[in-house]
Amino acid sequence: MPNLLYALPQSTLIAATPEPEDAPLVLGAVLLSMVVVYFAAKLGGEICARINLPPVLGELVGGVVVGVSALNLIVFPESGSEETGSLIIRFLEATGGLSTEGAFSVFQAESEVLDILSELGVIILLFEIGLESDLRELIRVGPQAAIVAILGVVTPFTLGTVGLIALFNVPTVPAVFAGAALTATSIGITAKVLAELGKLSSREGQIIIGAAVLDDVLGIIVLAVVASLAKTGEIEISRVLILVGSAAAFLIGSIFLGRLLSPYFVALVDRLQTRGQLLISALIFTFILAYIGAVVQLEAILGAFAAGLILAETEKREELEEQVIPVADMLVPIFFVTVGARTDISVLNPLDPGNREALIIAIFLVVVAIIGKIVTGLGVFGQDGINRLAIGIGMVPRGEVGLVFVGVGSATGILSESLEAAIIVMVILTTFLAPAFLRVVFREPDQDSGAPAVDGTAPLAVEGGDRSEVEAVQD
Amino acid sequence: MPNLLYALPQSTLIAATPEPEDAPLVLGAVLLSMVVVYFAAKLGGEICARINLPPVLGELVGGVVVGVSALNLIVFPESGSEETGSLIIRFLEATGGLSTEGAFSVFQAESEVLDILSELGVIILLFEIGLESDLRELIRVGPQAAIVAILGVVTPFTLGTVGLIALFNVPTVPAVFAGAALTATSIGITAKVLAELGKLSSREGQIIIGAAVLDDVLGIIVLAVVASLAKTGEIEISRVLILVGSAAAFLIGSIFLGRLLSPYFVALVDRLQTRGQLLISALIFTFILAYIGAVVQLEAILGAFAAGLILAETEKREELEEQVIPVADMLVPIFFVTVGARTDISVLNPLDPGNREALIIAIFLVVVAIIGKIVTGLGVFGQDGINRLAIGIGMVPRGEVGLVFVGVGSATGILSESLEAAIIVMVILTTFLAPAFLRVVFREPDQDSGAPAVDGTAPLAVEGGDRSEVEAVQD
Repeated sequence: MPNLLYALPQSTLIAATPEPEDAPLVLGAVLLSMVVVYFAAKLGGEICARINLPPVLGELVGGVVVGVSALNLIVFPESGSEETGSLIIRFLEATGGLSTEGAFSVFQAESEVLDILSELGVIILLFEIGLESDLRELIRVGPQAAIVAILGVVTPFTLGTVGLIALFNVPTVPAVFAGAALTATSIGITAKVLAELGKLSSREGQIIIGAAVLDDVLGIIVLAVVASLAKTGEIEISRVLILVGSAAAFLIGSIFLGRLLSPYFVALVDRLQTRGQLLISALIFTFILAYIGAVVQLEAILGAFAAGLILAETEKREELEEQVIPVADMLVPIFFVTVGARTDISVLNPLDPGNREALIIAIFLVVVAIIGKIVTGLGVFGQDGINRLAIGIGMVPRGEVGLVFVGVGSATGILSESLEAAIIVMVILTTFLAPAFLRVVFREPDQDSGAPAVDGTAPLAVEGGDRSEVEAVQD
Repeated sequence: MPNLLYALPQSTLIAATPEPEDAPLVLGAVLLSMVVVYFAAKLGGEICARINLPPVLGELVGGVVVGVSALNLIVFPESGSEETGSLIIRFLEATGGLSTEGAFSVFQAESEVLDILSELGVIILLFEIGLESDLRELIRVGPQAAIVAILGVVTPFTLGTVGLIALFNVPTVPAVFAGAALTATSIGITAKVLAELGKLSSREGQIIIGAAVLDDVLGIIVLAVVASLAKTGEIEISRVLILVGSAAAFLIGSIFLGRLLSPYFVALVDRLQTRGQLLISALIFTFILAYIGAVVQLEAILGAFAAGLILAETEKREELEEQVIPVADMLVPIFFVTVGARTDISVLNPLDPGNREALIIAIFLVVVAIIGKIVTGLGVFGQDGINRLAIGIGMVPRGEVGLVFVGVGSATGILSESLEAAIIVMVILTTFLAPAFLRVVFREPDQDSGAPAVDGTAPLAVEGGDRSEVEAVQD
């Protein structure tokens, strides 16, 4: 039997045995950790929101600040940290009566719980992204969007993987992984940038959004394929084909079956009378698909994404989106902050000669990431006078899906520290640069639509119910 | 330094060390466990809803069914279960490639994560109860409600504790704990029963609700006191006074300070722009108070309750209630189902002569629980023609607060299995019997108010936003 399930955890799960008198302190350590995580997420997110950047980048940077790179509040055993390095554990020793002997086991247990919480966070995130995606919209914007999406996956993947192997002698598997991380476009960030510019309903805007939706799906499949490859450590073409086939079969099959069965889901939920009937039914469905997605050697998150896509087709979509928001707000930041916390950015210090290679790789990845998406505009056919450059630039931001790749790569241990840091730099820079570039290439900004969405995020987000897709996915 | 923090966990925290190749399966085990927990909670809850009983009882009974008493799906190491007894672990071995050698450590890690999730659930539950409570309503209904509440705590506590020691030779500490479990009235269940009968706005109804709100606060203080006593294993009057004092000081002090500072909280939240700003800010506040509540030798849940009371006074109350609902829906059932799953009801089998004592204790507790609350009606003064019996009966249902006592007692290990089972029988029977009794003592049922709340639970719960207090706390 294969032992290859679930790319995400595998990290802090080497738990020890807390002594009975220290065991209750695990809850205290988890509470303090969550306070630190939320504080870092909000501080970073708010700063980014004020300089017109996606809040998710702030969560990542906030994680870097509280993590192993700086404050040592959120640290994990697998990055070589010891319990004496965790300021939270030392705070517990000072205020909560934690014994020095018990510190290690409490540290291990706290890390393990935080790890599972962050995994539940990314499962909820992918469920939400699935719920926000729209198969019918994809079909409507049609062939142009599909070509842009496919070019936008193939070009940066090929350039990135080949370049890393040929120019930097990176081993094949990590090179494939890094190339894959270059593929996904962030629908949330893209949509938000277009809304900022008032271009959401332009011809270019519609093609970008359609391609970004499809790119989300392709990105998930690519992620599933490379994560599985990363776990076996080698590439076999037959295995790739099997994985692509099973990814497609799982996604298409579950969507097909799901659409057949979803009327019964709606009918069942309508007959339930107790509180949380819709959310809990949806979570049961999502967790089962996540487990199956993992059992067929794909990813738990692919199952969660499929569950979201399926339930997005039902009449319960809006209600469910509303109810998933607070759950996502609670769990998703744990994922992004811990991704940041695990990243040791000291490898990017230019003063250390040993870091030159990581920096050069980062520059290479950023260039490939931008060029690889800009060329996709050339694939648009049958549209006279369309702004091809704008379409290409619109596909540049990588955002949360790129970070999911980093998280998975970090968990499977396939990425070297320098490559991981380089990918994060690529994600951050593409997302930072795209809004500025887009302002340049869209010559005549019209302010009549979408513009208020940026400044209006706060009041809309408070209501929960009437948020548009743009705000709902953005972090 | 005292090692007495946090009464709740201490149970399944003896984690082992999963082998790297089995570690990813912890997520799989957690996902499957949550599917089972949610399925049990919904099935039990829906059945109870259909026979006009509070859904929370169904969650408890559902937990009993999937737990150590019957199906062995959700089992915990501390109740003597081994990993070979957990059907989920055996399912993982069959479908997920879990090795037999790795089964024990995955079982331990899964139990630990489930344990922390259930503790986060009870923290969120108490936060929500605090948010639904209303200090000003208490002050308005005034002295009658206060006397009913105090009598309703003192009488069953005294009768229960003295009776258990004198009649059944129960040791002092567990007797005090069981007596304390007799004190709390469930505001959710009481309010729902009154709404069913259309008596929510009657004079009797208002006194009952006021007393139940106060009883919630008193119950939390009693819980904090006895849980701390249970941990030291002895009763010192000075210690009791210190605990009562620190409980009162913590609750009053945090509410006083909280009301002073809450305008700044509101102003801060209003200035935040990113998604989840209100919920995350509230969770930071709640988790900090929960940690402080634990550090001053009380309970994490007391801090969560205080946080709810404080934020209930702000203009953000309604928004926050809305956003907490899905989070509570996700986490709270984990608490109730695991409480049920840990309960070995085989001790109540009347065919086993060894169980006679537990059954006799259960009968005694039920009688004391009912008499101890009925007499409270006699304390109402200055109200001619009021239905004193109805007020007393209205205080009878114990519901979720009674189950919190069981959970804490179970976690601290202070309750014998028979006493724990007897308390659960008491909670179940008082909640089952009160609606029937109330129908009898309220002679002329008027159907003009509140009645639709029962049948209308499902559509109201879906909306989330416009639910009254009655539905919001009921499970």
